[in-house]
Amino acid sequence: MTHNIAILGASGYTGAELVRLIATHPNMKIAALSADRKAGMVMADVFPHLRHLSLPTLCTIDEIDFSTVDLCFCALPHKTSQQVIAALPAPLKIVDLSADFRLRDPAAYEKWYGNAHSALAQQDEAVYGLTEFYRDEITAARLVAGTGCNAATGQFALRPLIANAVIDLDDIILDLKCAVSGAGRSLKENLLHAELSEGTNAYAVGGTHRHLGEFDQEFSRLARRPVKVQFTPHLIPANRGILATCYVKGDAQIVYDTLCTAYADEVFIHMLPFGATPSTHDVRGSNFCHIGVTADRIENRAIVVATLDNLTKGSSGQALQNANLMLGEDETEGLMLAPLFP
Amino acid sequence: MTHNIAILGASGYTGAELVRLIATHPNMKIAALSADRKAGMVMADVFPHLRHLSLPTLCTIDEIDFSTVDLCFCALPHKTSQQVIAALPAPLKIVDLSADFRLRDPAAYEKWYGNAHSALAQQDEAVYGLTEFYRDEITAARLVAGTGCNAATGQFALRPLIANAVIDLDDIILDLKCAVSGAGRSLKENLLHAELSEGTNAYAVGGTHRHLGEFDQEFSRLARRPVKVQFTPHLIPANRGILATCYVKGDAQIVYDTLCTAYADEVFIHMLPFGATPSTHDVRGSNFCHIGVTADRIENRAIVVATLDNLTKGSSGQALQNANLMLGEDETEGLMLAPLFP
Amino acid sequence: MTHNIAILGASGYTGAELVRLIATHPNMKIAALSADRKAGMVMADVFPHLRHLSLPTLCTIDEIDFSTVDLCFCALPHKTSQQVIAALPAPLKIVDLSADFRLRDPAAYEKWYGNAHSALAQQDEAVYGLTEFYRDEITAARLVAGTGCNAATGQFALRPLIANAVIDLDDIILDLKCAVSGAGRSLKENLLHAELSEGTNAYAVGGTHRHLGEFDQEFSRLARRPVKVQFTPHLIPANRGILATCYVKGDAQIVYDTLCTAYADEVFIHMLPFGATPSTHDVRGSNFCHIGVTADRIENRAIVVATLDNLTKGSSGQALQNANLMLGEDETEGLMLAPLFP
Amino acid sequence: MTHNIAILGASGYTGAELVRLIATHPNMKIAALSADRKAGMVMADVFPHLRHLSLPTLCTIDEIDFSTVDLCFCALPHKTSQQVIAALPAPLKIVDLSADFRLRDPAAYEKWYGNAHSALAQQDEAVYGLTEFYRDEITAARLVAGTGCNAATGQFALRPLIANAVIDLDDIILDLKCAVSGAGRSLKENLLHAELSEGTNAYAVGGTHRHLGEFDQEFSRLARRPVKVQFTPHLIPANRGILATCYVKGDAQIVYDTLCTAYADEVFIHMLPFGATPSTHDVRGSNFCHIGVTADRIENRAIVVATLDNLTKGSSGQALQNANLMLGEDETEGLMLAPLFP
Repeated sequence: MTHNIAILGASGYTGAELVRLIATHPNMKIAALSADRKAGMVMADVFPHLRHLSLPTLCTIDEIDFSTVDLCFCALPHKTSQQVIAALPAPLKIVDLSADFRLRDPAAYEKWYGNAHSALAQQDEAVYGLTEFYRDEITAARLVAGTGCNAATGQFALRPLIANAVIDLDDIILDLKCAVSGAGRSLKENLLHAELSEGTNAYAVGGTHRHLGEFDQEFSRLARRPVKVQFTPHLIPANRGILATCYVKGDAQIVYDTLCTAYADEVFIHMLPFGATPSTHDVRGSNFCHIGVTADRIENRAIVVATLDNLTKGSSGQALQNANLMLGEDETEGLMLAPLFP
Repeated sequence: MTHNIAILGASGYTGAELVRLIATHPNMKIAALSADRKAGMVMADVFPHLRHLSLPTLCTIDEIDFSTVDLCFCALPHKTSQQVIAALPAPLKIVDLSADFRLRDPAAYEKWYGNAHSALAQQDEAVYGLTEFYRDEITAARLVAGTGCNAATGQFALRPLIANAVIDLDDIILDLKCAVSGAGRSLKENLLHAELSEGTNAYAVGGTHRHLGEFDQEFSRLARRPVKVQFTPHLIPANRGILATCYVKGDAQIVYDTLCTAYADEVFIHMLPFGATPSTHDVRGSNFCHIGVTADRIENRAIVVATLDNLTKGSSGQALQNANLMLGEDETEGLMLAPLFP
Repeated sequence: MTHNIAILGASGYTGAELVRLIATHPNMKIAALSADRKAGMVMADVFPHLRHLSLPTLCTIDEIDFSTVDLCFCALPHKTSQQVIAALPAPLKIVDLSADFRLRDPAAYEKWYGNAHSALAQQDEAVYGLTEFYRDEITAARLVAGTGCNAATGQFALRPLIANAVIDLDDIILDLKCAVSGAGRSLKENLLHAELSEGTNAYAVGGTHRHLGEFDQEFSRLARRPVKVQFTPHLIPANRGILATCYVKGDAQIVYDTLCTAYADEVFIHMLPFGATPSTHDVRGSNFCHIGVTADRIENRAIVVATLDNLTKGSSGQALQNANLMLGEDETEGLMLAPLFP
Repeated sequence: MTHNIAILGASGYTGAELVRLIATHPNMKIAALSADRKAGMVMADVFPHLRHLSLPTLCTIDEIDFSTVDLCFCALPHKTSQQVIAALPAPLKIVDLSADFRLRDPAAYEKWYGNAHSALAQQDEAVYGLTEFYRDEITAARLVAGTGCNAATGQFALRPLIANAVIDLDDIILDLKCAVSGAGRSLKENLLHAELSEGTNAYAVGGTHRHLGEFDQEFSRLARRPVKVQFTPHLIPANRGILATCYVKGDAQIVYDTLCTAYADEVFIHMLPFGATPSTHDVRGSNFCHIGVTADRIENRAIVVATLDNLTKGSSGQALQNANLMLGEDETEGLMLAPLFP
């Protein structure tokens, strides 16, 4: 059975990534693509790399007949997303890729995003989209909130450790190296090739990055008490990939075993041998997450390094994985593409 | 029906690319992977990006039981390849990715490669592997010689123009921009990140690049008289992609129409609108070739720009396309992956 | 004696490059820096790499007391530049880095830039700033027009060949590979790291790039008859550097000897040994230009490859070289910095 | 007065960087350049970017007449360096760039480098070359040991904090992002453009990187008790630059003030405004080090980020700074070149 799919916000990187992945999905058909400012254009003019596909012309959201749509991916900017989703027909299944439904607590949303939430009913209904940890809820959900790409990476490294209390909860440091596509197709000086290539810098230092809202929510929920982590992202001259270097206090072997146990049956999460370290190069363009654990020379300290592709496992791949569950498809359908190396 | 596949030389980039592509092919199974110096290693240690696949352990060629193999990809260095292929069991279907069987004339081989050919019977039997132009011969072939990646790019831009005599045959210039993976996994100073990134240079200037042997052979055959082109490759700081800028003398509109006619039914060759120019970014990781034609301000001159991914359409993708034909599979099977952008 | 220098348009790349170079010039002092939209900011906030220098706060042009300024570099956008320069005090020495005064013929200016010139008196007075070929005129000039960076590269490769009539004037092809800083600090999608890195494409194909106005003017003047060249620029994933691959018809040895003779006494122009090819890597950050000549395998064809740093020798370094002449300084003062490699 | 300079090991990156810097030094003359395997070659063939300089032909060390040399830079591999230096004439001033004389304790040397030291007298005599902290000793020294580039970056961030006991000495984490030229001109697969560009990975995780020997030595000496830090380097796709993100426990404002006080009179060390973060882009090719301090959202935690160019301030620039002191030159001579941006 073929599912009719709509993608709202198809002119951004996550929209294009959804199209790339769905292109080889056997049971999905792209029925509508919206891009308000580019409505009327053909996708090949917006993204020439999709030229070989037969795709609907870009349209406005209003022009879409949602009665024929089985599932809608919403790849719009946050704030816009909550308004659009609140207005969509009630029974429509939705996977949202924005930040709008990630935080359950309206006050937390307002704290991190600076405005009151305008779709409280949907916020209440939404399921957090970290597939490996919310599989049952996602399968049953109507509205799933895709996670932040940094938030996903950090959680894959740390959730089992926090849930099993094998590390010190008050001393967790995440140092992230983030590729530039995570910032989207935005025209900013620091994203220009001339200013970004050949170097690196930290940003949102000191606890101001919005994905901390997700870490706080999820880690505190797991620990059943407040957990606050330190999180410093760095921009690196690469287009895809996040590498999270996590410094934790605990026995490295226990840390490793805990992660191995947690991910033993997961198709997309791969534990490296103890002491090995992953590389963003090895997951590029794929839905896989690689995790390595090393013991530090200082007793009772471990370094957990996790990596994934921010546009795939960190965003559009995760969204498709969730959509598969919601539509009764095999969870891995369309997602087993091998990474692109070199 | 599942075909058993062997890949000789699996520890190089084209070997890894074959594995990547075959991984999503519905009717192929990798039965053996050889890599002489790395025999005994598991593929995940040589190429961690293939960690998620169940693959045979690397072995020596001698260890392979070819009686159970339906088709063998040979991704060995030239010179080695001819020796190995000469010794393989006679009825085995082979797609060779080296330069050893591209030139039909033993004298031409010796001229460009500096040594006498040691497998003349196989050289005589081999079919040139540019699928779109040798489809019938390839379908019937036992041994197919994959083309040079630069040679493929230039031929896609020029073959129909030469065959239809719509350009001056004595004044053809190909200026190529080539990504670094075309040089393979070789340890050379000029391939180091520190020396290659952030700049460009020409190499093999003046008519010394070996792929000229293929241009000479194929273009002269099409024209039924000697045709010599000028060809200057440049190394650019990118890992995948070739862009061929071809300067020809002829009417640009006729040039364009001739190419459009030639490729009207081809799945993998896409003509851009007249006056548009392709980008290597838009074919990365895919089996597609994009071609654009522009009229110069000087009368009767046209610029034809063709681009493809050297590891896919220029090498391993082409090889798989040929293998599909040889095994009775649909030509596009396993090859419709969309390009990776950004 | 110290010269007081003003730089108008100091918040762009060429402005910053002027500051970088002047920083080690023994006889120049930066007296004023303008940047209309960033007036009031300190340079360290606009360009943190200049943090170690004591520099004037950015101001508007109106705030500058030009009576104390010996020479003014004008690094403004074209069109703006002609308006500003027309209004500057008459005796002030000016080096303009925009395109506004490069073309002598007002009709040619209008053809290439789309608007009538509004400072015809200054246009008439301006000297073309290709130092090695207009040294005397520049020394005596009040207003010097910096050349286009692509135009400079192509002219270094070709001027002596055209002037000495050693090549076919009707069949000259320039294929340029251009780093991204030539496009300035402009916010465009195709200049984003995510869209530019890891690939290349041609642009302004077919004879539409504005620097052709300079080639037409200068080459026709040298040949005393109209000369039109073919010129195709390509954007490469690098921040600095232009490589011009020039295809000419003529005897390669004579071509080489002609260039060697022409540049025998030039400090900044270096001829490589016959048959060697230059690399953008070897001139990065410097005022040097490297040129190589190779004979093609086809008789009477030569390939001339020239490279320089577009921001230095192609723009701000050239401007400083001209300013040195205008102020009676040694031409090389402040310009002997070695290239940065790797 | 002009000092005659010899550089041993001139065919590596740090050797070339020394030549680049000395090229604009008013009082140094390069009298000899050695490179054993490339003896007899001219420097322009080894490093074409130095083509414009008049330099001695490369020779073997034996061919150098050290009686005419005032100071010798030794840019040889470790182990080789100690053997060569032990055999140099006694009164010769030497700045060593290898790891051989950085550790004062022969046992520590053997622990980190795996072999017994063979030049114990020189090891005993050598002064640790972190200029800003050993200025007087360096001025009086005959033999100065250049620091590790990672070790320099981390020490600039942390020394004043440890010396003034304003942070918890038992909980210091250094997460470093390191450009590839720090690995030298070595032919390794992971340094190839195809394998390094477009991604990142950690290496020497868990406390195995040799520069920890320097951190242990220096920090323990400052604290007068053993101090062990956690240190994880990451390779990033850039050619120059190290960014050290240091996680410390202490009051951020006190941390900031302590660093400001320590570096108030230093020409090359620049403190950013409180809360600002530095970028490797802003020090590229220069001898400057930029440091920023930010308070974390968690009380009593601060993030100190320091950046420098590994080849300049981290190696050859530091070496020249030390040589200036040893020769009675102004410490900054030849070192005030502005960073190259973009």
